[in-house]
Amino acid sequence: MILDITISLDGFVTGPDDAVQALHEWAVGDDRTEQDVEQLATLTAATGAVVMGRHTFDVVDGPDGWNEDMHYGADQGDVPPPCFVVTHRPPEHVRLTDRMTIVTTGLRDALDQATAAAGDKDVFIMGGGELGGSALRDGVVDKLHLHVAPVLLGAGTGLFEGSRVTLRIDEAATVVTRNAAHLYYDVVR
Amino acid sequence: MILDITISLDGFVTGPDDAVQALHEWAVGDDRTEQDVEQLATLTAATGAVVMGRHTFDVVDGPDGWNEDMHYGADQGDVPPPCFVVTHRPPEHVRLTDRMTIVTTGLRDALDQATAAAGDKDVFIMGGGELGGSALRDGVVDKLHLHVAPVLLGAGTGLFEGSRVTLRIDEAATVVTRNAAHLYYDVVR
Repeated sequence: MILDITISLDGFVTGPDDAVQALHEWAVGDDRTEQDVEQLATLTAATGAVVMGRHTFDVVDGPDGWNEDMHYGADQGDVPPPCFVVTHRPPEHVRLTDRMTIVTTGLRDALDQATAAAGDKDVFIMGGGELGGSALRDGVVDKLHLHVAPVLLGAGTGLFEGSRVTLRIDEAATVVTRNAAHLYYDVVR
Repeated sequence: MILDITISLDGFVTGPDDAVQALHEWAVGDDRTEQDVEQLATLTAATGAVVMGRHTFDVVDGPDGWNEDMHYGADQGDVPPPCFVVTHRPPEHVRLTDRMTIVTTGLRDALDQATAAAGDKDVFIMGGGELGGSALRDGVVDKLHLHVAPVLLGAGTGLFEGSRVTLRIDEAATVVTRNAAHLYYDVVR
């Protein structure tokens, strides 16, 4: 499984007020570089299924979430991949009904279902911080992709709490732009 | 002022038990790469004076600390630069007496003395985490050099607590090796 997530340099996936924009400039901002766009396209093309937590679902399935203009859609000539939402609070309303599967039986069940749905492609855990952190602590992460935005937020939802993991960086894959250091690691077991 | 420090990917400058070795492999390990050695040599050559906290002093001035074989010495053909130790607990014994100045009146005083001593070269704050963190919070850091080791420690002395800072990465200076992502940032004011 691949945990692919955007964080601040101090390890937060969300922060106070307007931090979301600063974090995700590389992915959805007006100041994206060509290299940023390439990173996202490569990752998107490799994605067979996505596992996400409830907060992330609320964003991407919300009215300002995934649509034909961003992330998955026009750029890829494709709809979003199958998504598995790990939550103990099933949402009352789902917008992207043909894409979203609500899983109330935990992360491992969601990963199993995602693996079956992904075919030859990869399963991406896209966050948020709570789900990503528990995936790291549970030892189900094989690869860690970090898009590290050049900002210290000072507060927010952390990703790494309590995880002790040795990593091996994929030097060749690493790309640094003004918007993010795209760092690709393998988990060493 | 330049804050130049080695951290884990989860932002700790020290961690449990044997973590120090994993963190500093790039600088003092047997597995250093040519690029790692170049990074250290470039930084060392640019250093006019060093500001450090008491924990760091205890390490570098201790019996296993700086000597002719490492960091400053044979490689550089030089002795360590003038060092200014910020502490409220002056040490009873100083080994490198001609290099170490104990400053009990705070970080800003130490930076002033270091600036005077550095001449045309740069002043480096080399840590530890407490001193580096307070330098970031106090707004006296102009450049942040991070050597990010590929490990999540899960616990230790953090660097970034409470700092909210916007940064600009120096893409051209960035180098990634198997031992560290050497990331160079300017603080944006």
